[in-house]
Amino acid sequence: MKIRTGIGYDVHQFAEGRKCILGGVDIPHTVGLLGHSDADVLCHAIADAILGALGLPDIGYYFPPNDDSIEGISSLDILKKCKMLADEKGAELQNVDSALVAEAPKILPHLAEMKANIANALNLVPEDIGIKATTNETMGFVGRREGIAAMATCCLIIHKS
Amino acid sequence: MKIRTGIGYDVHQFAEGRKCILGGVDIPHTVGLLGHSDADVLCHAIADAILGALGLPDIGYYFPPNDDSIEGISSLDILKKCKMLADEKGAELQNVDSALVAEAPKILPHLAEMKANIANALNLVPEDIGIKATTNETMGFVGRREGIAAMATCCLIIHKS
Amino acid sequence: MKIRTGIGYDVHQFAEGRKCILGGVDIPHTVGLLGHSDADVLCHAIADAILGALGLPDIGYYFPPNDDSIEGISSLDILKKCKMLADEKGAELQNVDSALVAEAPKILPHLAEMKANIANALNLVPEDIGIKATTNETMGFVGRREGIAAMATCCLIIHKS
Repeated sequence: MKIRTGIGYDVHQFAEGRKCILGGVDIPHTVGLLGHSDADVLCHAIADAILGALGLPDIGYYFPPNDDSIEGISSLDILKKCKMLADEKGAELQNVDSALVAEAPKILPHLAEMKANIANALNLVPEDIGIKATTNETMGFVGRREGIAAMATCCLIIHKS
Repeated sequence: MKIRTGIGYDVHQFAEGRKCILGGVDIPHTVGLLGHSDADVLCHAIADAILGALGLPDIGYYFPPNDDSIEGISSLDILKKCKMLADEKGAELQNVDSALVAEAPKILPHLAEMKANIANALNLVPEDIGIKATTNETMGFVGRREGIAAMATCCLIIHKS
Repeated sequence: MKIRTGIGYDVHQFAEGRKCILGGVDIPHTVGLLGHSDADVLCHAIADAILGALGLPDIGYYFPPNDDSIEGISSLDILKKCKMLADEKGAELQNVDSALVAEAPKILPHLAEMKANIANALNLVPEDIGIKATTNETMGFVGRREGIAAMATCCLIIHKS
């Protein structure tokens, strides 16, 4: 048995005329997030944490930003792909935890739905998904409301190796 | 048995006329940290890592910044609350690790006391507590000495579920 | 048996006339990284994650920036020291994962060599090493190409204690 952890980090810029999708939930906000996929910065950080714990290349390797066929895809599908890759390695995902850093929007009203979406994509239960949020106290690029940053970790057990 | 990890991130601004409390230690410094509680950015990041590993909501849910009854509380009490919540879930905390990002103050002279405070609040031994510090090499909001950032992780085992 | 995780963070500034060494690989780039050692920001974040998981002081304690005897040392030697410290504690390193945040250079062409270097220094196999990279979408100090940030985590098991 091997126990492994991963760490993921992602950022996306705020932009007019885009949706603000976090954890698969289209959150009402004055601006949205810019990106080639749905720009779900939270799912991207979680995906990278899982890929990293598996020792695989990052999300940009599996989902290149210049691949037209994946333009606008739901990042929940990216998580499903990560779950498949974990299965192929015989890895049993234990839990996922994450931290959003943004001045806005508030995520608490959407937390249950976000957790359910991510748990469903990873074949976990919502209790296995941590999502936390904090502002950057008006400092730096997050504080200037230029975008959102997300960090994530995960723990998995590999039974075969 | 489930093994789980968490990740926490927090920042607080430097401000005149405030204490600079890190890991429960009042560290002599030219400025202090602004916040509703004692603004102990290190303990907050650790608290969020633990709450996240437990799949619970974040520190702002349990200790809302608009709750007058908790104004100025010691963040060691926030850690004690996290330990209680872990106990309720049957979770055995394994260790905590953290990284402070700040141009100043130096924390090495206070490291043993900080570790002892955090270990005591979480019912761990000091060897189970990691506290590291680095500057941001004068870059960004940390480099401009606007504030301190902290990151933390933890590992816990849930025997019942 | 105790299971422990660690978290590491480091940044280095870009500078003219320096090498850009990441994961022990001298990566061709228009600028290099400034630091007392070889400024391998990736190895430094990984080293701090390991030291933190062991509950030991940070990289600055073991490799002080004012120690002339270590000027320009390879950060792979810093990782070897961390491995020795882990051995002394009876800690079995499980895996390492990391995330680079930089607008440039691209690391994918060098990924296999970086993983091999880090695995070799830590007596792991390349599959146990995660290295991921993302840009900061032109935001903040990383977005302004002032430097590179790196985050890392690790998991280890302590059999004796």
